[in-house]
Amino acid sequence: MPRPPAAAGDVDGITLDELALATRNHGQPLEALRYDVTPPGLHYVLVHYDIPDVRADDWKLSVTGRVRTDLTLSLAQLQEMPAVTRHVVMECAGNGRARLVPRPISQPWLVEAVGCAEWTGVPLRAVLEQAGVESTAVEAVFTGADHGIERGVEQDYQRSLPLPVADDVLLAYAMNGRPLPPQHGFPLRLVVPGWYGMSHVKWLCDITLTGTPFTGYQQSVAYRLRDRPEDPGEPVTRIAPRALIIPPGFPDFMTRTRFVRPGLTSLHGRAWSGHGPIARVEVSTDHGHTWRDAEVAPRPADSHAWQAWRITWDPTPGPHLLTARATDVHGHTQPLQQPWNQGGFANNSVQEVTVQCR
Amino acid sequence: MPRPPAAAGDVDGITLDELALATRNHGQPLEALRYDVTPPGLHYVLVHYDIPDVRADDWKLSVTGRVRTDLTLSLAQLQEMPAVTRHVVMECAGNGRARLVPRPISQPWLVEAVGCAEWTGVPLRAVLEQAGVESTAVEAVFTGADHGIERGVEQDYQRSLPLPVADDVLLAYAMNGRPLPPQHGFPLRLVVPGWYGMSHVKWLCDITLTGTPFTGYQQSVAYRLRDRPEDPGEPVTRIAPRALIIPPGFPDFMTRTRFVRPGLTSLHGRAWSGHGPIARVEVSTDHGHTWRDAEVAPRPADSHAWQAWRITWDPTPGPHLLTARATDVHGHTQPLQQPWNQGGFANNSVQEVTVQCR
Repeated sequence: MPRPPAAAGDVDGITLDELALATRNHGQPLEALRYDVTPPGLHYVLVHYDIPDVRADDWKLSVTGRVRTDLTLSLAQLQEMPAVTRHVVMECAGNGRARLVPRPISQPWLVEAVGCAEWTGVPLRAVLEQAGVESTAVEAVFTGADHGIERGVEQDYQRSLPLPVADDVLLAYAMNGRPLPPQHGFPLRLVVPGWYGMSHVKWLCDITLTGTPFTGYQQSVAYRLRDRPEDPGEPVTRIAPRALIIPPGFPDFMTRTRFVRPGLTSLHGRAWSGHGPIARVEVSTDHGHTWRDAEVAPRPADSHAWQAWRITWDPTPGPHLLTARATDVHGHTQPLQQPWNQGGFANNSVQEVTVQCR
Repeated sequence: MPRPPAAAGDVDGITLDELALATRNHGQPLEALRYDVTPPGLHYVLVHYDIPDVRADDWKLSVTGRVRTDLTLSLAQLQEMPAVTRHVVMECAGNGRARLVPRPISQPWLVEAVGCAEWTGVPLRAVLEQAGVESTAVEAVFTGADHGIERGVEQDYQRSLPLPVADDVLLAYAMNGRPLPPQHGFPLRLVVPGWYGMSHVKWLCDITLTGTPFTGYQQSVAYRLRDRPEDPGEPVTRIAPRALIIPPGFPDFMTRTRFVRPGLTSLHGRAWSGHGPIARVEVSTDHGHTWRDAEVAPRPADSHAWQAWRITWDPTPGPHLLTARATDVHGHTQPLQQPWNQGGFANNSVQEVTVQCR
């Protein structure tokens, strides 16, 4: 029986194990929110084990299980099928974890585990139509080439999706118009619009249709919303709404405190939700005492990109605490105080940006 | 008078300020040592302030000071000049800092702040010949477009090189055959073969030739080897030798401990020195009790790339501690116990990789 997935620490300091993850994985430097499309190297990356050494020539995608015809597809064969390109915001389910008290021990994200890229590939639907899905199939299980141990369980990275959700996903072989970088899943990855990052399986090499729900580690042990270790919990699925502010002015190297000059300025940022478009972004420049509505760019139909927002600000000399709060069209909004869970998942409490005006 | 550049903490835990740097900057996942040329997103990045929002159309390089003719060059003008391409290993001067006790408080690198890319651009020499260097010039001061505060000093990022060193540097506008990514200095950066990363000024916009040595913050306050804060210290310059092992087998997610199966295996890695080619890599698989010589690939003439090395290993079940030690042709070698300095600079003590064979 695997150990529970998230031991919570109430210590102040980040451990060397957490640091080792933070130095190899990386978030998005927040000034990169300025780009509509996030370049590789600025888009967040979380690799559970190692980036596998996959060569395109040796690689095949197998499609098996409850299908009428097993398929084995090369990259060239996938690239000959009709391609679609989608802008999709992607966020780690553990974003914000390191700000929780007590802190769940895992990759210690503060607020920056996000990116919005342009993904090109083949709709999974087209591949499944080619294989022929049996009527008894309920889920698709996706297997990556990355292999490791997590809480005592040796595994290939695997996640499943119920077939209705799987219908809307992409088998992506290009990011921003170029072959996938190694750390983003070369040569093929899943892109699941609206869902947290754990579902976007990288280095994808097998799709198996199953007649019962998948109970592998990443589905039934990790990535559950639990109040206590023994709680079976609810699965982590769609991205909760979030707004991020592009930190204004310029920073102090060590504290990342921002400095601005007095006078009218624009604050810019991005907002997104996995449930639908963002309807409202409210901004506070006085530590949450008062809020004003920002101007929010609409989200094009069929896009899963983040949305830009802006508001003017007239800072006076002294310290300021900036905060932004997003609400989507379904009324999901960001909490000012985050409810805690064992793994620190789906944490979308508001960002705080400390600014000195001088 | 600015505060000393590196307060040393003797606490165990990494602070949230250090973590905020670790989540935005990133090292090289060590399995990426397998690539001869490191892709962007895997090559280490350290950004002192923010990545500036530089557009190629608005950008110019000015060359001024002790020159006969001031120059203002566009990117297109630089790209019309004869180009050279060089493979250069680049390493942060603070690599390894977070393993020192007490730990200097800054970007908390463990061992992964390195990369080896292919840089294309114009030799600085060609631009200086066009401007005409006055005989009284002793240094070139390089100014980047990044702006921030460091220990109370508001500044554009600036570093200088003595003219004999400046003669061998590159004004690079391409990384691995593509325009520089934003985080690597778009549209132009300095590449100083053999020197630590602080000298490779990114987002380069001005070169000023001076008649006296530059005394700016990054030259005379930061990046000095000091035993105590009040010590003026020696400047950080060339990269000390280092060997890194590609961690064998597969990892545990949280501890990054490696797991291998019993039986003959190959250990691979890279080694480099800013003083010259690597002559020898010794490997220990028994916690430093015994050492064997690895097979080291030669470094091509005029290359500043890292060198590959390999050795066979026949692990038996149980725990093992792997370590590797590089020595360059001038006899510089890696210490087993690192001498400490205030900023944690030029730390090249040997890497340790914990492996469980089962």
